[in-house]
Amino acid sequence: MAQWVEQSGFWLDCTGAGELYIAKSANFPRERLLVHGVNKSATDLQAAYAQAGTIVVDNLTELHHLLRLNHHSLKSCRKPSALPNLWLRVRPGIAVETHKYTQTGQEDSKFGMNLAEALHALELARQHDFSVTGIHFHQGSHFHNPEPIGPALNMILDLLVEIRDQSGWLPERLCPGGGWGVPYHEDDLPHPSIGDYVTFVAETLEAGCRERDLALPALHLEPGRSLVAQAGVAIYQVGSVKETQQKRWYLIDGGMADNPRPALYQARYTALPVVEQSNRPVTTEATLGGPFCESGDILIHDLALPDLLPGEWIAVPVSGAYQLAMGSNYNGATRPAVVWLDQGEAYLIQRRETVDDLITRDLPFPSS
Amino acid sequence: MAQWVEQSGFWLDCTGAGELYIAKSANFPRERLLVHGVNKSATDLQAAYAQAGTIVVDNLTELHHLLRLNHHSLKSCRKPSALPNLWLRVRPGIAVETHKYTQTGQEDSKFGMNLAEALHALELARQHDFSVTGIHFHQGSHFHNPEPIGPALNMILDLLVEIRDQSGWLPERLCPGGGWGVPYHEDDLPHPSIGDYVTFVAETLEAGCRERDLALPALHLEPGRSLVAQAGVAIYQVGSVKETQQKRWYLIDGGMADNPRPALYQARYTALPVVEQSNRPVTTEATLGGPFCESGDILIHDLALPDLLPGEWIAVPVSGAYQLAMGSNYNGATRPAVVWLDQGEAYLIQRRETVDDLITRDLPFPSS
Repeated sequence: MAQWVEQSGFWLDCTGAGELYIAKSANFPRERLLVHGVNKSATDLQAAYAQAGTIVVDNLTELHHLLRLNHHSLKSCRKPSALPNLWLRVRPGIAVETHKYTQTGQEDSKFGMNLAEALHALELARQHDFSVTGIHFHQGSHFHNPEPIGPALNMILDLLVEIRDQSGWLPERLCPGGGWGVPYHEDDLPHPSIGDYVTFVAETLEAGCRERDLALPALHLEPGRSLVAQAGVAIYQVGSVKETQQKRWYLIDGGMADNPRPALYQARYTALPVVEQSNRPVTTEATLGGPFCESGDILIHDLALPDLLPGEWIAVPVSGAYQLAMGSNYNGATRPAVVWLDQGEAYLIQRRETVDDLITRDLPFPSS
Repeated sequence: MAQWVEQSGFWLDCTGAGELYIAKSANFPRERLLVHGVNKSATDLQAAYAQAGTIVVDNLTELHHLLRLNHHSLKSCRKPSALPNLWLRVRPGIAVETHKYTQTGQEDSKFGMNLAEALHALELARQHDFSVTGIHFHQGSHFHNPEPIGPALNMILDLLVEIRDQSGWLPERLCPGGGWGVPYHEDDLPHPSIGDYVTFVAETLEAGCRERDLALPALHLEPGRSLVAQAGVAIYQVGSVKETQQKRWYLIDGGMADNPRPALYQARYTALPVVEQSNRPVTTEATLGGPFCESGDILIHDLALPDLLPGEWIAVPVSGAYQLAMGSNYNGATRPAVVWLDQGEAYLIQRRETVDDLITRDLPFPSS
């Protein structure tokens, strides 16, 4: 893995001290660690200041906090070996088409700075010896049409012209965020390719810079979901099979605790039996319900499936992003084991959570 | 606590092996441990068989599993000191008025058995030496009007007449579930009292039994949320303050990772500054956004608040139910500490999660 990381040239986006710690424990190289976050805590900022290659500044309060941190660090001779570079996160005022929970670019979003704030932040940061090397914006997650990136990118390029004319500064890197979608369900097919998305963004950037006589910055994309989602498959076991008036239920051993996306965003997945029998007819639409005590705990509604028996295993593809990361212990659920498959070999890389793990943080109750 | 549990007479509902283990680690008495769950796993059923006083049977597949478990246990002389009693969960076909995710009583719900299945389950369980001592149904969570319990209760009493006439059996306990709501927000006030709810259910049950000449069963209620929600207060710290075109944002250090209820159910909470200054005017409506990287991470929308400064603490009352239990490590968030207040003293009863805790289940990655 370390070798792959070294060779790939990928950067890793972290959100706060927890993810930075995980990245550090995997020996991810500092210069390619970038820290995001809309409301980074003091702990997050300290960790980012000490360990990250780049911090994406979300707002002016945060920048002031960072300047104070640097000031105290210099005074107490605890200056890190290298100051992180800064990027500025700008709110373009334009979102992409996706679930409203995962739209981020709209003007009344909590993310980023407006153009005036970004200009002010640039000036402040440079006065205090930070290198500002990038501009970042993000319009939403899991979208399938890159076109809304066009007007936002052009708006950002207009800002860059203004900045260049006032200060001579231009970013080395320009990042229109991530969020490129993946097909989770048959109905998402055919899905435009990541190549279409990259080509659209690159061509828009190139044309926009040419029109404005701007030096072309490096284009930095954050296509995390689209790279890892399809690498993961969630495996569930059918427990009870139940018929209600209008539904067949396959009740499975996981659901909203290990994957809250269907309940949160009405995300639609597909599933298939792990042991496929070639002449097994699709019989009926069935609903895959989880074991948790609420009706929102439905993993997949009304999916065409062959007859399944209690004890059968089913696979839910495209489970590699935002599932393990969002898992909870709801109803005392223990989180699943993670197995890595490589060249036909299987390796356990995260052990199953145990009931003992559930009480490790509990302390003796005061006797009264 | 143990003393209080002993004296209170309360039962504890567990869902599966994880919660049973937590209850056992707190020395909760076996005879008052009741196990629920719509798709109990083999592990859940083994734990329930060995450790619970009562198992609520959700469906026939599960009952068959339990009968096999008992059969093997008897054959191998690993019979537990006491067999758990069984209750049967019936699906009444009538839900209460609440968020559709937390409605459970409707006919196409994944929970419970229809009346024919319940009759069959009763017969099977009794043939195999289990005591069936209760009937359970549940119509939904967090409702404020008990009236839909009326027709469901009467339907269950009709079923009991049928069962009594066929088999002579009557339940010792009848449980119309839980789900009594609490006021989370000023707009939920005035809120009917739990007394209104209990009176309504008790009177309906009494009248229904009298009409049908049925012996009155013990009434068993599950008002967990309404007992504990108001005992908990979540404390957050304001980080950045941000103005967008139409909104003032207070960005706080928690949100959908520690409380997914607003994103999941559009649950509305209220908040107030921890340090109240008496003559502090309410200035504007503000939105409390969390630090997590999605727009769904908004704890409270458009709440009237005084001006708050970065660093101030705010309290969100009615945070004692379904928050710690549903918390995740989203974005590498570490879960909060829990402090117990008793007679003016504060005791840490669950320590804050650390970044080290986040990687305890990780195993060395295979070198390739």
